Amino acid sequence: MAAERNVLIVYAHQSNGSFNAAARDAAMEVLQSQGCRVTVSDLYAMGFRACATADDIIGELKNPDNFHYGEETVQAWKEGRLTDDIKAEHQKVREAQLIIFQFPMYWFSVPAILKGWIDRVLTQGFAFSLQNMYSNGNFKDKKVILSFTTGSTEGMFLPDGVHGDINVVLWPLQSGTLYFCGFQVLPPQIFWAPGHSPPETQKAMLVAWRKRLATLWEETPLSFTPTNLFDMSFSGGFRLLPQVKEQRQEEPYGLSTGHHLGKPIPPNNQTKASPPHD
Amino acid sequence: MAAERNVLIVYAHQSNGSFNAAARDAAMEVLQSQGCRVTVSDLYAMGFRACATADDIIGELKNPDNFHYGEETVQAWKEGRLTDDIKAEHQKVREAQLIIFQFPMYWFSVPAILKGWIDRVLTQGFAFSLQNMYSNGNFKDKKVILSFTTGSTEGMFLPDGVHGDINVVLWPLQSGTLYFCGFQVLPPQIFWAPGHSPPETQKAMLVAWRKRLATLWEETPLSFTPTNLFDMSFSGGFRLLPQVKEQRQEEPYGLSTGHHLGKPIPPNNQTKASPPHD
Repeated sequence: MAAERNVLIVYAHQSNGSFNAAARDAAMEVLQSQGCRVTVSDLYAMGFRACATADDIIGELKNPDNFHYGEETVQAWKEGRLTDDIKAEHQKVREAQLIIFQFPMYWFSVPAILKGWIDRVLTQGFAFSLQNMYSNGNFKDKKVILSFTTGSTEGMFLPDGVHGDINVVLWPLQSGTLYFCGFQVLPPQIFWAPGHSPPETQKAMLVAWRKRLATLWEETPLSFTPTNLFDMSFSGGFRLLPQVKEQRQEEPYGLSTGHHLGKPIPPNNQTKASPPHD
Repeated sequence: MAAERNVLIVYAHQSNGSFNAAARDAAMEVLQSQGCRVTVSDLYAMGFRACATADDIIGELKNPDNFHYGEETVQAWKEGRLTDDIKAEHQKVREAQLIIFQFPMYWFSVPAILKGWIDRVLTQGFAFSLQNMYSNGNFKDKKVILSFTTGSTEGMFLPDGVHGDINVVLWPLQSGTLYFCGFQVLPPQIFWAPGHSPPETQKAMLVAWRKRLATLWEETPLSFTPTNLFDMSFSGGFRLLPQVKEQRQEEPYGLSTGHHLGKPIPPNNQTKASPPHD
């Protein structure tokens, strides 16, 4: 049963009349009907600050003449000296078993306000460390999903479409950001060009989303290369173990979109869960 | 001669004591010594607004109940109703023959404040349209370069490094954003982990950057798939022409990182210019 589960929706659209708002509301409704507690961070409505500055740190800076956001914030986090807006988001993340990012894709990525949430909330120490990243990441017991709208059609994001493969586009967000923090990344929910679709198509998209949400907790996450296949030391250079590379020689595909090893990318690597192996 | 050339540096670091500031200063010095006029948009110092909101539009919204940033701003741009900060950046872009983005990589992408510049300044109509994108893009006579620092080493961003291939990481920015607007995208200037490097290594990095800047104008841009290889119509789905796909059958590599066509990605596609053919 899904009772007692906490869900955080990080929502980044300016208008409550938008398709993104409808997708958010659908998620709230379905998840609440399962007994989940749903919290929404409505970034525009909150006036969430996007820019990573020294204002995020209370008290003295370690190195004011050569301010380094990452180094200052890891220290401030340890000492409880981050601003209240960041602490509040940390608390929501801490309590959540599932985070849904709901946004319109801007420039092949998240809107700046949501990039600001990523830059400011996924603080080193809190979200990751050199010891705790990827499959050893801090958030390995949490699920996450990117749910977003596009302006372009699905065909434009195929490997032979004008924009190129959506799987490549999603790598920096899904691997470099979410899996980096350990999250179990569920296949993205992509709403293709709702703004160019008739109302009945938009309705059908939301019906499909509700249906998916009904069994979202049971879904298999995307598969990424496990960290234990790498030599995670500075002397080993954080590179794939030689024996793993050797074993892959005969395989038709690379390990993942980013770990392609000079082979074709495994199809749908960032959009569909692999069939379960046993 | 490079006289009369205008360069815009869009700079996104909080501190003038940073390596990024030194890289910016090196670029200013070398380019000014060539006779270029160099303008810097120092985003943090300007307090540049990152978030795309209705505040960017002067006067009445077209559709206030279902606010759509893209649709409202293309209209506002046509009618001269964008805010002054956006208009000022438009003017700088219009005048520039070269734009340098100087930033520290945050989460496999640009910092939120720079994503805000991209979201707000690369306005539809001004920067692109359905008719004017990629090789037909508005900025096809301008050069652009991403110049950035990383926290990780180069090895971690190899196809067998823990983060995966840097060429995949750069695709959304270099193809989806810059080439999308038509820019000639020069190979990126990547400063690998200067923060973890001794002062003499940092100095050597800046010396190499100055050396590169001396002949930057002569460099061959990265190669992307030309738009005339696609059927750029809704009926054709903005997909690669069948005869082009057929011609590629025998080739060992795909066309580009995103247009991999199920083949291995052309090595260094987003980091090095291809050797000239013919």
